[in-house]
Amino acid sequence: MSLIVKKFGGSSVANAERVFNVANIIIDDYKKGNDVIVVVSAQGDTTDDLIEKAKEINPDGPSKREMDMLLASGEQISIALLAMAIEKLGCPVISLLGWQAGFNTDSHHGIARIRNINTERLKLEVSKHKIIIVAGFQGLNKYDDLTTLGRGGSDTSAVAIAAAMKADCCQIYTDVDGVYTADPRKVTNTQKLDQITYDEMLELATLGAQVLNNRSVEMAKKYNVELEVLSSLERKPGTIVKEIVKMEKTLIRGVAKDTNVTRISVIGLNDTPGVAFKLFNKLAQFKINVDIILQSVGRDGTKDITFTVPLDQGKDAITAIESIADILEYKEVVTDNSCAKVSIVGAGMESHPGVASKMFEALFDAGINIQMISTSEIKVSVLIDGKYADKAVQAVHEKFIQ
Amino acid sequence: MSLIVKKFGGSSVANAERVFNVANIIIDDYKKGNDVIVVVSAQGDTTDDLIEKAKEINPDGPSKREMDMLLASGEQISIALLAMAIEKLGCPVISLLGWQAGFNTDSHHGIARIRNINTERLKLEVSKHKIIIVAGFQGLNKYDDLTTLGRGGSDTSAVAIAAAMKADCCQIYTDVDGVYTADPRKVTNTQKLDQITYDEMLELATLGAQVLNNRSVEMAKKYNVELEVLSSLERKPGTIVKEIVKMEKTLIRGVAKDTNVTRISVIGLNDTPGVAFKLFNKLAQFKINVDIILQSVGRDGTKDITFTVPLDQGKDAITAIESIADILEYKEVVTDNSCAKVSIVGAGMESHPGVASKMFEALFDAGINIQMISTSEIKVSVLIDGKYADKAVQAVHEKFIQ
Repeated sequence: MSLIVKKFGGSSVANAERVFNVANIIIDDYKKGNDVIVVVSAQGDTTDDLIEKAKEINPDGPSKREMDMLLASGEQISIALLAMAIEKLGCPVISLLGWQAGFNTDSHHGIARIRNINTERLKLEVSKHKIIIVAGFQGLNKYDDLTTLGRGGSDTSAVAIAAAMKADCCQIYTDVDGVYTADPRKVTNTQKLDQITYDEMLELATLGAQVLNNRSVEMAKKYNVELEVLSSLERKPGTIVKEIVKMEKTLIRGVAKDTNVTRISVIGLNDTPGVAFKLFNKLAQFKINVDIILQSVGRDGTKDITFTVPLDQGKDAITAIESIADILEYKEVVTDNSCAKVSIVGAGMESHPGVASKMFEALFDAGINIQMISTSEIKVSVLIDGKYADKAVQAVHEKFIQ
Repeated sequence: MSLIVKKFGGSSVANAERVFNVANIIIDDYKKGNDVIVVVSAQGDTTDDLIEKAKEINPDGPSKREMDMLLASGEQISIALLAMAIEKLGCPVISLLGWQAGFNTDSHHGIARIRNINTERLKLEVSKHKIIIVAGFQGLNKYDDLTTLGRGGSDTSAVAIAAAMKADCCQIYTDVDGVYTADPRKVTNTQKLDQITYDEMLELATLGAQVLNNRSVEMAKKYNVELEVLSSLERKPGTIVKEIVKMEKTLIRGVAKDTNVTRISVIGLNDTPGVAFKLFNKLAQFKINVDIILQSVGRDGTKDITFTVPLDQGKDAITAIESIADILEYKEVVTDNSCAKVSIVGAGMESHPGVASKMFEALFDAGINIQMISTSEIKVSVLIDGKYADKAVQAVHEKFIQ
């Protein structure tokens, strides 16, 4: 007998038919003698509809405290309906709001962090052999006010419960049946992975393969929670995410692209020490997430620094740079919003030289110019012209996976 | 400076425009230096929509515990939106769910009774001079599960807060501008009452003048909370409900009709002691609300007992009677679903003889036959053929009010 945590997203419970589909998946595992705790998001478009209502009242954006009060109602509806479906199918069940399930968070409304889970109630209901349906995405701060965890919050809720309850496994149900070597809708001949490490999953998520939310993977890694990504529509094994995976023949776990990239070049900086520090320190103060950094070799007493940031932080980055124009002394700032980052990820590559060059070769064969390069122990990323992104992924995928 | 509790129903906050109308009413009183606590119901059809969703999942009716979980989300949405509107208009405000406002109830899901209100949080927010928006209709039981108070629950929530916080007044906003001597949509020349006693209000509510929920009036009487019934659309005084009202010229406070009546006659009972006890004891066991009772004078060793019950309890009443057919010994049971009860209510009538006969005269003049009569210290009710109900109300109203 195992304790299994299952998480279902909003589209999995969007209508009565899908709610019953999810109820049946849950009951199948419960009837095998397992204890089952389920985390569920708000139904389909509920959250968007609530945001729309709030905008109608205050287009400038209401306070985050009241926004959390509003949004938390969405999961309250979905947990009650899912519990009703399980009741109807004849199994003992109870729904719990975030605070009832013991989720204590900090007070950053809208992006709250889980401080701890008081598992008393969860343990009580497990001891009664009830299926427990928990509202994801929400908790309570020390003032007894409702908070929400922000984007991907329900994944995080599920992993947190799995960690706190020492569950045997945390299954994240999505609309894809696992993690693939590349986006199967864009690339031909992709393969589903049986297993992947937390770090590989993190790199893939960061690189735009939006299967799992990063925060939840980080938390799963920290507390060593075994994750499984699987489909709520097909009853078959998905992809297991855990610390050590059995090595497969392929070194490369996946190829990902990310078009949410702005490239910024600061041209004609003085070639003196401290310039990079001043620049990136200021960007950090502005909370800009800088990704790839490239610094040219100095020439004629000046140098150029180029870096990438997420698209929506481009403007803030320019503002940050301009705020220290008198200190930095540069000739001009050039931005490019039409680039893309293509990456290969795989824990095996660090002990295998030549992986990067094999990737560059694939791009060269495809006639694609590389603008920037960045590498880590388990990743090689290149920045290219955005219009070649899909072509680049296909070329690199063919080189490594087949 | 006063502490005012205001309650707004679902239609008062049905859309963004109405939410702002309510926000402005609240702010007007707040800016006069008053502390304001507001109780609000779920928006417009929200509750009906949620019930529909539940029926789709389980047409046989889900558990009441999960139904409460589902329905309580309705007020959560409305309090957040109303708080956002008040924020937008520049006043300090905070929304609180039933449990956050300290509502402790028993565990009768769907029809929970308030046990007590822990006023700690309410007092804290009042001390910060915030407008407080409380979710009506809901509370928390001792197991930390959400409960709802049932029909008219938000009125009860408002009165309970007014009592617990020792508010100066509890204003119930409705779609009518006060309590009238008769239903103004049906009767001509009705008059709005400035004041009315709790008992008169209770009698009128029971008799079908659905302005205020009975439970809330009973609670207001018990804790001596001054109520005001007024319109959320017009800014003018409504009707005050309190213990002692200044006597107006008229003895009669109002004329009401109730067509939610079934008349049941048990014919040919043995004319022996204990028959009435056995009958009504059994009806009480079946939780039947018996209203008017009439027993015929015995003849030929038998007698008839006739009584009225609410329409929807008619079937249960018959079942109750048939369950003791062997003990009671009667000839037959006759029911009539097409009758109506017309009543006059007024605390003044007990010291003024001739009130009842004046009512009977009005009905005689209108050619309406009286089937049954019931009187109390502040009320005279008659049962008549339902098709003459409006005509009877008009005739009696003309006799007394003009």
